[in-house]
Amino acid sequence: MMNLFDHIQKPTLLLDIDKAKANIHAMAAKARRWGVTFRPHFKTHQSAQVGEWFRDEGVEAITVSSLEMANYFSQHGWTDITVAFPFNPRQMEGYNRLAQQIKLGIVVEADEMVDFLAAHAKAGMDVWVKVDVGSHRTGIAVDEVETVWSLIQRITAVKNLHLQGLLTHAGMTYRQSNTAAVVALNQQSVDGLNHLRDALHLRGAPGLLISVGDTPACSLCDPIGRVDEIRPGNFVFYDAMQLAHGVCAFEQVAVALVCPVVAKHADRNEVVIHGGDVHLSSEYYEQDGKRIFGMVSLPEGASWGKPLAETFVTRLSQEHGIISASRQAFERISAGDLVCVLPAHSCITVASMRRYLTTTGDWIDALGYTPLREP
Amino acid sequence: MMNLFDHIQKPTLLLDIDKAKANIHAMAAKARRWGVTFRPHFKTHQSAQVGEWFRDEGVEAITVSSLEMANYFSQHGWTDITVAFPFNPRQMEGYNRLAQQIKLGIVVEADEMVDFLAAHAKAGMDVWVKVDVGSHRTGIAVDEVETVWSLIQRITAVKNLHLQGLLTHAGMTYRQSNTAAVVALNQQSVDGLNHLRDALHLRGAPGLLISVGDTPACSLCDPIGRVDEIRPGNFVFYDAMQLAHGVCAFEQVAVALVCPVVAKHADRNEVVIHGGDVHLSSEYYEQDGKRIFGMVSLPEGASWGKPLAETFVTRLSQEHGIISASRQAFERISAGDLVCVLPAHSCITVASMRRYLTTTGDWIDALGYTPLREP
Repeated sequence: MMNLFDHIQKPTLLLDIDKAKANIHAMAAKARRWGVTFRPHFKTHQSAQVGEWFRDEGVEAITVSSLEMANYFSQHGWTDITVAFPFNPRQMEGYNRLAQQIKLGIVVEADEMVDFLAAHAKAGMDVWVKVDVGSHRTGIAVDEVETVWSLIQRITAVKNLHLQGLLTHAGMTYRQSNTAAVVALNQQSVDGLNHLRDALHLRGAPGLLISVGDTPACSLCDPIGRVDEIRPGNFVFYDAMQLAHGVCAFEQVAVALVCPVVAKHADRNEVVIHGGDVHLSSEYYEQDGKRIFGMVSLPEGASWGKPLAETFVTRLSQEHGIISASRQAFERISAGDLVCVLPAHSCITVASMRRYLTTTGDWIDALGYTPLREP
Repeated sequence: MMNLFDHIQKPTLLLDIDKAKANIHAMAAKARRWGVTFRPHFKTHQSAQVGEWFRDEGVEAITVSSLEMANYFSQHGWTDITVAFPFNPRQMEGYNRLAQQIKLGIVVEADEMVDFLAAHAKAGMDVWVKVDVGSHRTGIAVDEVETVWSLIQRITAVKNLHLQGLLTHAGMTYRQSNTAAVVALNQQSVDGLNHLRDALHLRGAPGLLISVGDTPACSLCDPIGRVDEIRPGNFVFYDAMQLAHGVCAFEQVAVALVCPVVAKHADRNEVVIHGGDVHLSSEYYEQDGKRIFGMVSLPEGASWGKPLAETFVTRLSQEHGIISASRQAFERISAGDLVCVLPAHSCITVASMRRYLTTTGDWIDALGYTPLREP
């Protein structure tokens, strides 16, 4: 049998099916054990076929980050979707159309948006109040009980808006590099949400659900604490950042960008690959003051081997990637070879590539993939 | 007539046709005045239709950064294309196919690649030697005369390889923020290339051409110096980075990402937009120690107004952008509004979006655009 890598001519996103399925299985099992709803975030893989692997684990409800993704997964048979992004009034027509077809969840944080929905929502929608537990991206601060209470009263007064509860994304866990810090942040976040829930209960809003979502906490905390729903996304593939931060093991990283080596510079132990911003994305993590865009490993069987020590993608331009290699790694790589780059942030790499080659030799498309016309 | 912006519901790349055409006209006129070949880099716009605006200015030869782009533009009638990226032996078949159809230029820097081409090139190809004038990305260092001379001898011994000359990309000019520094770097680069050319002439390689390519030098230097060809790309649209560095004027920035405003946080003067990594890309420039992913302006007519003072996109996640606004700008923007973000680096934003809405209300596709299936 011909080797999978023999056919690869240009940057190609390789998906290790066994690893991805094991990641899905492990998180689904955790959620069952914790007695919480597992509503995985599909923004990471954006693929109908990968979605089927979740269905095989009993998943029925999902999270997405745009109306376009919600439409795509609705077209692929998903009927319970939360758009975990602030409601965008300019897309009201699209929300209405989708809410007439499926159980659609939306996220709000401002009175004006609820008033807008009161005037324009034409079908029932599940509504989550976005709470900020410290990432300071979106949401009402978790200690602003009166602001949330006022918003909740507004929501419950609208026939088409079905209040679900409090939703947060503790994005600050992604910046931690040890388990204790993630566990402490999760505890603080969950405590804050429960405190808010109790205070709202006292004021007359019983039965609010709590939905949390970050991959580091869902991976490292056990148990996750008093929540009703988890929405992790990145865990399906993980990536070099999660590996470097100790959130996952090497064996759990399920995607790598396979890149042709096109040049070498012995005077500075640098290897030039075809694989740049437009493939990997410009996302990076920092280590010893250096920016790391990806770890580097070599093909092994139909997958990839352990990352090469002291060998990282450290610079990118549109199509070029520069690997700063150890002398030993430099000697093992020749122009014309392929290397496998574990991307710093798999979600954005997938969004750039939009197509996977699997370790079984099949192609899987993601939302928005276009086949190129052959010459 | 309905306003162009009334129809925009989600992140949309707006292209100001007048500005782009003026940028093309100005650079083409400069090249004519300088008596150099104008071989613009099409990786910035990646669009057949934008390519036609270059043809209207008499352009017949172009540069691209991948074989896929070369194929795309060849399918759209371009017959003289340089792939300004190190030759990738894994795509030999594709290079051969294209070289049989058009005048194809390739770039090499290593003996092994020339040997590989000697064995496998099945059609004539123009060959450029990649020279490193200081950006340390790819190429043979400009002072390594003997290495270049040895490579040149190897190239000229192969029937299908037609040696053209020395090609460089002085990428370090993009990191400068004043004209004098760019002019000095360009002078140093052009002097080094001419010194190398003279030394090679003495050894027996007369008539080598010199091809240079960076937008800052081509924009700020006048004259550009003793070169034969220029290959700027970014100048067709420019961007916030080039504007911040003084390479272009506001009136020359020809693309902006139009983004819906979805939330506001008065306690920190932050505005949340739909417009994240997957739209703008994670490219940034630094100013006063802050990362700037884009300047922010407001819609004006069918285009956009001057950037709002002290108001920048300072954080991104996959779909969210966070604008740190001045108090005055914060008050002018409401949830449901649209803002126009001048991206830090237009090339990568275009590669992420792959479709333009023009200021005349038309849609223009770039390579790889897929229409979404409507629900």
